[in-house]
Amino acid sequence: MTTSTPSRQIRPGATLGIVGGGQLGRMIALAAANYGLKVHVYAPDADSPAFDVAAAHTVASYDDAAALAAFADACDVVTYEFENIPHATAAILAEHATVRPSAHALLTTQDRLVEKDFVNGLGIPTAPYRAVDTAEDLEAALDALGRPAILKTRRFGYDGKGQRTIRAGDDAAAILADFCGAPCILEGFVPFRREVSVVAARGPDGAFAAYEPCENEHRDHILAFTRVPAPGLDPATAAAAETIARAIAEALDYVGVLAVELFEIEGAAGAARLVVNEIAPRVHNSGHWTTEGALTSQFTQAVRAVCGWPLGDTARTGGMNVEMENLIGDAAERWPALLAEGSAHLHLYGKAEARPGRKMGHVTRLIPPGTTP
Amino acid sequence: MTTSTPSRQIRPGATLGIVGGGQLGRMIALAAANYGLKVHVYAPDADSPAFDVAAAHTVASYDDAAALAAFADACDVVTYEFENIPHATAAILAEHATVRPSAHALLTTQDRLVEKDFVNGLGIPTAPYRAVDTAEDLEAALDALGRPAILKTRRFGYDGKGQRTIRAGDDAAAILADFCGAPCILEGFVPFRREVSVVAARGPDGAFAAYEPCENEHRDHILAFTRVPAPGLDPATAAAAETIARAIAEALDYVGVLAVELFEIEGAAGAARLVVNEIAPRVHNSGHWTTEGALTSQFTQAVRAVCGWPLGDTARTGGMNVEMENLIGDAAERWPALLAEGSAHLHLYGKAEARPGRKMGHVTRLIPPGTTP
Repeated sequence: MTTSTPSRQIRPGATLGIVGGGQLGRMIALAAANYGLKVHVYAPDADSPAFDVAAAHTVASYDDAAALAAFADACDVVTYEFENIPHATAAILAEHATVRPSAHALLTTQDRLVEKDFVNGLGIPTAPYRAVDTAEDLEAALDALGRPAILKTRRFGYDGKGQRTIRAGDDAAAILADFCGAPCILEGFVPFRREVSVVAARGPDGAFAAYEPCENEHRDHILAFTRVPAPGLDPATAAAAETIARAIAEALDYVGVLAVELFEIEGAAGAARLVVNEIAPRVHNSGHWTTEGALTSQFTQAVRAVCGWPLGDTARTGGMNVEMENLIGDAAERWPALLAEGSAHLHLYGKAEARPGRKMGHVTRLIPPGTTP
Repeated sequence: MTTSTPSRQIRPGATLGIVGGGQLGRMIALAAANYGLKVHVYAPDADSPAFDVAAAHTVASYDDAAALAAFADACDVVTYEFENIPHATAAILAEHATVRPSAHALLTTQDRLVEKDFVNGLGIPTAPYRAVDTAEDLEAALDALGRPAILKTRRFGYDGKGQRTIRAGDDAAAILADFCGAPCILEGFVPFRREVSVVAARGPDGAFAAYEPCENEHRDHILAFTRVPAPGLDPATAAAAETIARAIAEALDYVGVLAVELFEIEGAAGAARLVVNEIAPRVHNSGHWTTEGALTSQFTQAVRAVCGWPLGDTARTGGMNVEMENLIGDAAERWPALLAEGSAHLHLYGKAEARPGRKMGHVTRLIPPGTTP
C-alpha cells in the first residue's frame, strides 16, 4: 500500500481506483490498462465482473470506512462506475485520494429532486415535478401536474426500477405505499418524440468534449438501441443538446465523463425542443457505441479526464453511422450468430448468470452512410 | 479448479489460458475479456504485465510439471504469447487442455533450422542457410554462402539477440565461441529492399483470414515502425505474400494467429520477389496496428481462432492508411505529447522499468489516404 496525496501526478503506472464492479467498471478498467495504469476495483460483490480485469480488488461494503480508506490510500485517483453510493462513502474516499467526479457532483445527480432543482436553476427545462413524501403531497402533486404522471423514488432508480406511472383511475395512495416510505418525486408527463443523450467529458482544466447526440430506443424501460447520429435530429437541436451538457458539466465543475438524457419534444427548433430527463455522472450505456464508433471511446475518455490528461477526439470513426444494440438476458445467447456477423463488434461482460432484464453485453455495428443495417 | 477435456466447447464464460505474461499476453487478455472470457496467465515472473488484466495467474517456471498441469486443468483452451517454451512444457499442457496453436507448430517454428527446412519443403524460398554446430561447420558454411553472412542461434533469438553478422576479415570462430556452444545456423546475405510481414489467422475448421501485408522498419534490430498498406508494394507481390502465409498455416494445420516475415528482393514480380525470413506462431508486433487500424484486431482474431469461433473481418478501418510506432525504452516518456496528439492511439504495457531496447508501448496513427502524417 502506498500513501496518496491529492497533488500526486497521475501517470502511466499509477493506480486508478474504480468504485463499483459492474460492466461499466470493467470497461473503464480495460481502457485504463491500455495506458499502463493499474486498476483497483472496490465492490461489495465477490463476483463483480470488473474484478477479472483489475490488478487489485477489494470486496467490501460501501459503508466499511476502514476498507474505503485503505482502498483510497492505495489509489492515485478514484472514480465511480455508478452514482448510488452514500455521501459518507464519497467523503471518506475524498479524504484519502483525489476523487473524480467530485462528491458534490454525485450528491447533485443521485437524487432526482436535487438534480431537477439544479438543472432548472441553470435555466434548463425539465419535466414539471413535485417532491412527494406523503399521500397528501401526492394528491396535491397530481392536482398540479395532472394524470398520467410518473412517480419515482428520488434515489436508486435505474432501468425503470423505482418508478410507476399513475393513470386516470389508479389508486395513487396504494402505488405510493408500494415504495415503502422512500422519498419520491412526481414527474408530469412530457409528450416527447424520442430520447436523445449527450455523452461528454470535462477535464480538471475545464477542457470539454462531447460526442454527437445519439438517439436511444427503450424496451421495457431498458435501453435497447442507440443510434448515432440521431436520425433526423436537426443541427440546431443537436448543438443545443451539447450546449446543455456543457452548461451542466461546467456548473458542477465536473471532471470525468457524464451523460445527459434529454427528451426531444415537438415544437420550436433548438433548445426549446429539449427537456433534460436525467444526468448520469459516469460513463453511460448510450455511449457504448463509442468503443468502435468513435476515435476515442467513452471509457478511454473517462480515464483521460480523471487522470487530468488531454481529452481525445470524439469524432465518429471514418464518418460511419453507428448502432449499438444491448443484449439483455437471454439475448446474449445469440453470441454465435453475432460473432459470425460481418463487422459487428460483440461485447460480453463476463456475468455468470443471465437473468431477465440483466445487461449481459452489447453489439456495435458500423454502417456506411446511405445504407441500412 | 475444473476438469477440462479437449472436446469442451469454448464459450463466453470459459477460461482462456495464456502461456507468457508480456505485452502480447496482456493484449490477448484484454481482447478475451471483451468477449466475457476469463483469462488465466502462466508466467515465471511475478511482475508480468499480463497478470494485471487477468482473472487468475500462476507464477511458476516453464518446467514445473505440476504447476503446468494444474494451470491447464483450470483452462478450457490454452494459447501462447511466445514460442520459446520447451517441448516438454507444451506436451504437458496438451495432455491437460486443448492447446492452440499445437505443440507441433511450436516445435517447427521455435528452431530456425527446422523452420527453414519446413518452409523450403513447401517450395517457398528462404535465405540460403547451413546448420552450424562446430567451427568446422561454420568454415564450410562460410565457404558455401560467402560473406557477409549472419550467424544465429537456432533458438531463443528475438530483436537481434542471438545473432551476429560475419563480415570479410572477421574471426568467425571467435564469434561462434561467443554463442557458448548453442546450436546455430548460418544464413546467407539477402540483398533485400525491405521487410514485409503478413499477419494471418486460421481456425480449427480451416478458415483463413490475412491482414494486408505491412512494411516493417527496424532500428538497432528492433521493429520501429510498421506501415500498412506497405507503400508501393505491387498487388501481385502482396497477393503472393498472403498465399505464402496461407500455405504455411495450412501445412502446420495451424490454429491461431501467426506472422510471416518476408524479405522483398529486387527482381521479378509476385512470389519470386519474396523470401521468408521468419515465422512467429503468435500475435506479432507488426500486427499491433490492427487494434485501431482494422475491423478486428489481431488479439481479438487470436481469441476467435483459438476458441474455434468465426474469424473476424481483417479490412482496414475506414480504408485509412495506418502507421504503428514502437515506443522503445525512454521513448515511452513521450506519453504526454502522444496523448495530446490528435487521433494518435497510445498503448502502454504497464512495465515498471524502461530499460534500453525494451518495448514499453506503441502508438498507432490512422492517416487518411493521400495525406502524410
